[in-house]
Amino acid sequence: MNIENIKPEDIEKRSMEIIESEIGDTSHLTESEKLIVKRVIHTTADFDYLNNLKFSENAVEKGLEALKSGAVIVTDTNMAKAGISKPAIKSLGCVLHCFMADEDVAAKAKAAGSTRAVASVEKAMELFREKPLIYVVGNAPTALIRIAELIEEGRMNPALVVGAPVGFVNIIQSKEMIKKCDVPYIVAEGRKGGSTVAAAICNAMLYQIYKRS
Amino acid sequence: MNIENIKPEDIEKRSMEIIESEIGDTSHLTESEKLIVKRVIHTTADFDYLNNLKFSENAVEKGLEALKSGAVIVTDTNMAKAGISKPAIKSLGCVLHCFMADEDVAAKAKAAGSTRAVASVEKAMELFREKPLIYVVGNAPTALIRIAELIEEGRMNPALVVGAPVGFVNIIQSKEMIKKCDVPYIVAEGRKGGSTVAAAICNAMLYQIYKRS
Repeated sequence: MNIENIKPEDIEKRSMEIIESEIGDTSHLTESEKLIVKRVIHTTADFDYLNNLKFSENAVEKGLEALKSGAVIVTDTNMAKAGISKPAIKSLGCVLHCFMADEDVAAKAKAAGSTRAVASVEKAMELFREKPLIYVVGNAPTALIRIAELIEEGRMNPALVVGAPVGFVNIIQSKEMIKKCDVPYIVAEGRKGGSTVAAAICNAMLYQIYKRS
Repeated sequence: MNIENIKPEDIEKRSMEIIESEIGDTSHLTESEKLIVKRVIHTTADFDYLNNLKFSENAVEKGLEALKSGAVIVTDTNMAKAGISKPAIKSLGCVLHCFMADEDVAAKAKAAGSTRAVASVEKAMELFREKPLIYVVGNAPTALIRIAELIEEGRMNPALVVGAPVGFVNIIQSKEMIKKCDVPYIVAEGRKGGSTVAAAICNAMLYQIYKRS
């Protein structure tokens, strides 16, 4: 297998062509959903996401609307935050936060015998009542569970929830919980997900409304 | 499926028990290699890594030795950098860099018609000739290819190369190239990999010599 001679700026295009040629039947997806799925596969080289990714009705459109209105995006990992396109965020007047390393979050979690992920959700809820909020979970099922509880209690009303925690304990349950809520969601079903998947979902939305140079 | 009631501090232990119970035959791995494989599966929920991860002889031990000597770790993505344990790095006297967003790297890449990943490798080579260098690739095959070339030319001599770029163009080729070099390596074979995998490999080494609180 020889090295393919390709210009740096053409690598992504070529990758997407390969994905398109191998992906198979995408008739269950809308055009905007397919852009999300393809970017997640581009990020993971894992075609399982063709069928793992689930979208509530018009979730992508609702996410795009929030982004165009200068949404607040909060992630549960600094890795996902690092992976989301800063030029796109800036250009759209959005803001991007991750509270996981904040001292007040650590203190609150410790006092409550809970996780920092839960305390971060509560901090976001308190800070951003008046803004369109996109909560992006790429790691902690406890974050997703807390979001579902707060939505059920009528205390939180995110514009979109991206639910892509990864792992083995309460992961599937957390995703099933959020899917039962009356909230727009994009969820990676099953055990798989992670920071790169969460960031890819956000970037796939951002790139639908932000032209990269 | 009900939520499992589990203390935050016990989640990782429980996850590792589940992985252990499902992983199957690990007789091809040494104990230290198995710790790497299990952490990558913990990070991805993808058991493909049981057979995808390849280690040159004593690669983990050589990586641990470098870390104990205050290695310089350079990553090709800020996401991988964000995911590597800062307390462990600090406690061991190691340092952690990612040059991808540096202006000199962007300028050099543009002038050479190359990628920022290649320019980052060259920057690391120039800066850290006297230090044990662990180069961690979680994204760009062009970085891994350049490292292989520089090793072949006798211009670079890393203590360890972590090769886990992900994607569709020159990914497999880049991994095959590094495996042919006379260098300690940990490689995720095939198309899969990514920043979370790269960071997990580093953390799995760090946690063998750094006690987390």
